[in-house]
Amino acid sequence: MIQISVLGYGTVGSGVVEVLNTNKESIAKRAGQEINVKYVLDLKDFEGDPIQEKVVHDYSLIVNDPEVKIVVETMGGVNPAYEFVKEALLKGKSVCTSNKELVASHGAELLEVAKKNKVNFLFEASVGGGIPIIRPLNQSLTADEIQEITGILNGTTNYILTKMSQEGVGFETALKDAQEKGYAERNPEADIEGYDACRKIAILTSLAYGMHVNFEDIYTEGITKITDVDIRYAKEAGAVIKMFGTSKKVDNKVFAMISPVMINSTNPLYSVNDVFNGIFVKGNLLGDVMFYGAGAGKLPTASAVVSDVVDAVKHLGINIMQIWSSKPLELADINDSVHRYFVRIPKEEEDKAREVFGAIETIDAGVYGDFGFITGEMTEREYKEKAENLIIRNMIRVAF
Amino acid sequence: MIQISVLGYGTVGSGVVEVLNTNKESIAKRAGQEINVKYVLDLKDFEGDPIQEKVVHDYSLIVNDPEVKIVVETMGGVNPAYEFVKEALLKGKSVCTSNKELVASHGAELLEVAKKNKVNFLFEASVGGGIPIIRPLNQSLTADEIQEITGILNGTTNYILTKMSQEGVGFETALKDAQEKGYAERNPEADIEGYDACRKIAILTSLAYGMHVNFEDIYTEGITKITDVDIRYAKEAGAVIKMFGTSKKVDNKVFAMISPVMINSTNPLYSVNDVFNGIFVKGNLLGDVMFYGAGAGKLPTASAVVSDVVDAVKHLGINIMQIWSSKPLELADINDSVHRYFVRIPKEEEDKAREVFGAIETIDAGVYGDFGFITGEMTEREYKEKAENLIIRNMIRVAF
Repeated sequence: MIQISVLGYGTVGSGVVEVLNTNKESIAKRAGQEINVKYVLDLKDFEGDPIQEKVVHDYSLIVNDPEVKIVVETMGGVNPAYEFVKEALLKGKSVCTSNKELVASHGAELLEVAKKNKVNFLFEASVGGGIPIIRPLNQSLTADEIQEITGILNGTTNYILTKMSQEGVGFETALKDAQEKGYAERNPEADIEGYDACRKIAILTSLAYGMHVNFEDIYTEGITKITDVDIRYAKEAGAVIKMFGTSKKVDNKVFAMISPVMINSTNPLYSVNDVFNGIFVKGNLLGDVMFYGAGAGKLPTASAVVSDVVDAVKHLGINIMQIWSSKPLELADINDSVHRYFVRIPKEEEDKAREVFGAIETIDAGVYGDFGFITGEMTEREYKEKAENLIIRNMIRVAF
Repeated sequence: MIQISVLGYGTVGSGVVEVLNTNKESIAKRAGQEINVKYVLDLKDFEGDPIQEKVVHDYSLIVNDPEVKIVVETMGGVNPAYEFVKEALLKGKSVCTSNKELVASHGAELLEVAKKNKVNFLFEASVGGGIPIIRPLNQSLTADEIQEITGILNGTTNYILTKMSQEGVGFETALKDAQEKGYAERNPEADIEGYDACRKIAILTSLAYGMHVNFEDIYTEGITKITDVDIRYAKEAGAVIKMFGTSKKVDNKVFAMISPVMINSTNPLYSVNDVFNGIFVKGNLLGDVMFYGAGAGKLPTASAVVSDVVDAVKHLGINIMQIWSSKPLELADINDSVHRYFVRIPKEEEDKAREVFGAIETIDAGVYGDFGFITGEMTEREYKEKAENLIIRNMIRVAF
């Protein structure tokens, strides 16, 4: 039997305990031994909960107990998670976490500390919830050089955009519905402004290229400016609007960004709807692969954490994660990236637009006083220069 | 530097050498050391090919060379692959194979031999070509009990069905086109009769439940009876026809089958088209995940083999594969499985059909003299009993 401890008994932490209880036998079989939760660290007492007797409030009890071999960190936030995790690794305990803020900001360092101490720092649940993506990137796509990772990485925004698209409602209505269903938080900023997806694409990009991507360097544009009018245009063009996190290697430069994108049915992420996530990876030899599943939710996320625990049990004393160096990966200037652009302007500016953009593809969505079109390919810089001459109602990048 | 050998320099075998050459540096970085092909076993000499100096015709040179730590088996077929692989494992060499016939018929035994000899028997490329599915099943979905695996597991038949659906051509025309493009063999039986997919679902099911599934026990129905008329009905119903390999756990019984199935756009496999494969897995806690990519092709398949080689290098002396026991998994009688059925009969039997099947959903595809409908849910046994009263032109299971 192996002893583990859980830090933080919130949604994911209590899910971890539930998963370990529900599938006790099959998990023990796969791990090669039974897994027992010795302590749960939380500020609350959980009186009356069967977990009560395991709850402690003092982390030193856990980190100094040589019986505890694996620590599950499901507190969220950078502090004190960072200090707790680092201390555990230094004391020879493996750590499994669902905490994307922690991994995005300190992943390189913690992977290195784990390696030095012959333990593992695993974070499958930090990206894509229940979708296996970190382990495939680390262990399966090892024969390839990664050329692109593009994902629908945030379930909340995907729910909102799906609802807007399928029911024709506006952004505010869709957001309210997401909040009522518990998919969006009362303060939804981290989701709708793209900050959550930004940390996730930073983690995936760091892992793919083996160097540290500072998430603050990633151009991040959320979905708050998407209106029902834009959705009408997208429909007319046979497209949907999704929020993509993308990193792409072009001529040895890596571009990374979060932004709404118009895609059509030729894109493998086209039918990733509601709260589901999808992550597309292009290898130089493998071609395209795509991973799809529940991007969040208590049990899917907890299941991913427990799969890390099983892996940690099977690899006691052996470091298995590819580390990414602390050396910063300099991202290319997004102004040099090339796209097509969907643009909406006042109808009376049509002639000027044709003059400025040259050959365009018009979309007639029957919106009075509006003129919508898709430009040819050009850099962001070229687009901005041209757009300065017009009254832009909205611009959405086009990926077809 | 680690020495490996490749058995069989055909499409996949030469692909493995190409992948190792093309991504030499990044592969060495991930494996922790350089990988060198010492021998290539083949009947031919490959005169003038740079590989020529490595070619040997005598397997004993390879299996008795203690420098060779990993053997890549890409010969195909059960014999002599089975004898070669077993001997390599017994001599303490790990084996990576793309050979689904071998894995489906001798997987349980070879995994056990590998375990006993502290080496690895890896076969990522045997199912789904370049799609990571064996390793995720073995290492990522470990916290879950698998309830269902359903896949589009054969690229040839998916190409044919996609072409029939998108261009309205008949089966023979689509098959001919697939043959001309090199997607189907001159003798296409293994693909179009479902035998290839059958071996793949046998492997996935064995791995998911840890017991040996005899592929000969799996009900297997190919796509040769699908006509352009069926496709017209599917379209009318907002559906497409795909060939599914499925295994499903219902009340602790496992049902497995290969057959054409009608699905609509709510199914995550709906937009898996052309030669692409998609594999859907349902866990009891994780919910639905789906893996998508190139199901065949020289480089995607070779990339999967090389990812196994990297894993074998990283795990010298440590067995990592979950073994499946040689104990046979008794599959449930397919007659007890429950579906809805699309049925086509002569128009004049409409009244009789309504009498026999009760409430049905009719589909008007404008086919003269034909009556098409979808039944309610019933077991295969019930369906067969009812169908005996009618002249059945075709029946296709419906998964919505």
